[in-house]
Amino acid sequence: MEKNRLEAFSDGVLAIIITIMVLELKPPHGIQLNALRPLVPVLLSYVLSFIYIGIYWNNHHHLLHTVKQVSGNILWANLHLLFWLSLFPFTTAWIGENHVAPTPTALYGFVLLMAAIAYYILQQAIISKQGRGSLLASAIGSDWKGKLSPVLYLAAIPLSFVNPWIGSSIYVLVALLWFVPDRRIERALEKRQHTAD
Amino acid sequence: MEKNRLEAFSDGVLAIIITIMVLELKPPHGIQLNALRPLVPVLLSYVLSFIYIGIYWNNHHHLLHTVKQVSGNILWANLHLLFWLSLFPFTTAWIGENHVAPTPTALYGFVLLMAAIAYYILQQAIISKQGRGSLLASAIGSDWKGKLSPVLYLAAIPLSFVNPWIGSSIYVLVALLWFVPDRRIERALEKRQHTAD
Amino acid sequence: MEKNRLEAFSDGVLAIIITIMVLELKPPHGIQLNALRPLVPVLLSYVLSFIYIGIYWNNHHHLLHTVKQVSGNILWANLHLLFWLSLFPFTTAWIGENHVAPTPTALYGFVLLMAAIAYYILQQAIISKQGRGSLLASAIGSDWKGKLSPVLYLAAIPLSFVNPWIGSSIYVLVALLWFVPDRRIERALEKRQHTAD
Amino acid sequence: MEKNRLEAFSDGVLAIIITIMVLELKPPHGIQLNALRPLVPVLLSYVLSFIYIGIYWNNHHHLLHTVKQVSGNILWANLHLLFWLSLFPFTTAWIGENHVAPTPTALYGFVLLMAAIAYYILQQAIISKQGRGSLLASAIGSDWKGKLSPVLYLAAIPLSFVNPWIGSSIYVLVALLWFVPDRRIERALEKRQHTAD
Repeated sequence: MEKNRLEAFSDGVLAIIITIMVLELKPPHGIQLNALRPLVPVLLSYVLSFIYIGIYWNNHHHLLHTVKQVSGNILWANLHLLFWLSLFPFTTAWIGENHVAPTPTALYGFVLLMAAIAYYILQQAIISKQGRGSLLASAIGSDWKGKLSPVLYLAAIPLSFVNPWIGSSIYVLVALLWFVPDRRIERALEKRQHTAD
Repeated sequence: MEKNRLEAFSDGVLAIIITIMVLELKPPHGIQLNALRPLVPVLLSYVLSFIYIGIYWNNHHHLLHTVKQVSGNILWANLHLLFWLSLFPFTTAWIGENHVAPTPTALYGFVLLMAAIAYYILQQAIISKQGRGSLLASAIGSDWKGKLSPVLYLAAIPLSFVNPWIGSSIYVLVALLWFVPDRRIERALEKRQHTAD
Repeated sequence: MEKNRLEAFSDGVLAIIITIMVLELKPPHGIQLNALRPLVPVLLSYVLSFIYIGIYWNNHHHLLHTVKQVSGNILWANLHLLFWLSLFPFTTAWIGENHVAPTPTALYGFVLLMAAIAYYILQQAIISKQGRGSLLASAIGSDWKGKLSPVLYLAAIPLSFVNPWIGSSIYVLVALLWFVPDRRIERALEKRQHTAD
Repeated sequence: MEKNRLEAFSDGVLAIIITIMVLELKPPHGIQLNALRPLVPVLLSYVLSFIYIGIYWNNHHHLLHTVKQVSGNILWANLHLLFWLSLFPFTTAWIGENHVAPTPTALYGFVLLMAAIAYYILQQAIISKQGRGSLLASAIGSDWKGKLSPVLYLAAIPLSFVNPWIGSSIYVLVALLWFVPDRRIERALEKRQHTAD
């Protein structure tokens, strides 16, 4: 039950984050098609952030699948993750309004980096609660995606000052990496099921 | 359980979409009844979009009724649908503020079209997961409404440039078509129940 | 299950309505206490609408308690109620910003009236689904509150043009009438329980 | 079931409150890093309020853990708490925009105080419903945190007029006090479990 409420609250926050980002897409004053042109970068940054929140929701979903009991550490690690995700509407708006300028692009990456670190901390809080033989620990294995992503974000931040399109391309690349939902946890669950039978 | 969270997240997003559209209804500065007159088209577009989101919620509800297990494809097909629905507040605001001008009316139809396609993709993802003898496949049958709607939207887009009221009338017509909730799925479920007894 | 999703969606919409009303309370530019003075009517109208949404949530909660199966009529009657409730943030903002002027006060009452009618329609949809010996029908009994409220709203609309404070006072009075949660349904449920034992 | 809906509604409202506060973080017009400087106090007040809502969610969660049946009093005491929490976005915005000025800082404390009192009232409503041998009453014991916090808020209000940073520091201090989730309830539940075995 405790876990259900953690999921419900997280779902609520993620649903609101993903939806309020669209409020930045303000209807233009003109009524011609070209009145929409300045909105294109705003729309693109919205699409990217929508996909990122979708990925986080997806993985969060799989992560909590392995959890049975929620500790205080898990609760706060989860809120910490939600905090960084709640800054997405802000960085998305700033990057979109300025048509991918250097500093907004770097800041976008910084928030992505902090969210990735927060996700890692949440993962560790769950593993430490599960103790030895943790289902989650065996499920994520080497976790190469989880380890590669922050490195890529870290590279994207300075590279955004060279050319913001390099930074943006890296964010798109990482999103593609994660787009495929994480089947490791599903597989580990199935395997354990088989062993139990 | 996995399905419950998919429903909860979708309900959250749809509840937010349906409610934030009302934020476009900004209180007028005047305090006479005629100060509300410029809000009439905004209100009408709000009513239409409210009904559309209501229809989607209704049908989504019936659709997931037939689902037992959620796959990665279903998750992403669902997010894809939510993405197009999340653009409703934007197109509703644009059409409302400009008192049904041609381009906003056409764009409104374009987003309706993309949402209809996304709904179709979600339906196919569920059918393909269910495999042969899919409950959903037998429930939707010929799916004439699902096939007719995109054709009507597609017609409405160019016709909006002839006269935006033609486009708008087509959107109202399609909404009326769907207004009756889809009882095919309920019937198929009941039938299967009977066969099982 | 079907009912659970109806409740979850309604809870989501009501939670958003009750919370976005606070967005009208915009922080003043001054930093002295008297900078808050123009916000007093905005705050008061927020408090009144908060209580009204609270009452609707409360009664909706009790209403659905008696429901076992959801029909298409119930779904749409519920969405119809949510539609009128979704206009509360608009009428609350208009009445608050204009320090209780006649037309905004009358409009506030009109939306209250329509919500009351929508609630009545939802009640009837549930009773007609339950058929003879409906638990809800016996629970609400003569339903004097449900019958008196629309009459009072109807009186408040023209009286708001005489003096808007008469209209507002009637809205406060009706809220007080409903403030006590509707125990009739709880009692009817308990009684049936006893009879069953 | 009744309790589930109370939790779901509260989770919804809290999720929205925690997320709409971020809408105050408006993207700056400049694109240099120093364009973000005026946002620092807005961000800091957001962080503090995020933590406070997180604490309330956490403790609310534990509080309702001990509840089996919801009475009318509990419903309204819960709505009363949500009302004061819903004013957090307003006071957070006012304190942030004015870089921690005296009156906004005092008002921030006033709303914290009222929320603490509302929490206390909710606690008492639950204890009185549970009657003698109330699980909650034995769980909270002397409740020194619950008693100390309002005293500290009460002191912070006048001290904010001496120097707003004194007030703000007290709010940070109280947040730190509560940061550790309330394990008393968990312990009382476990103990009762043991006694039952």
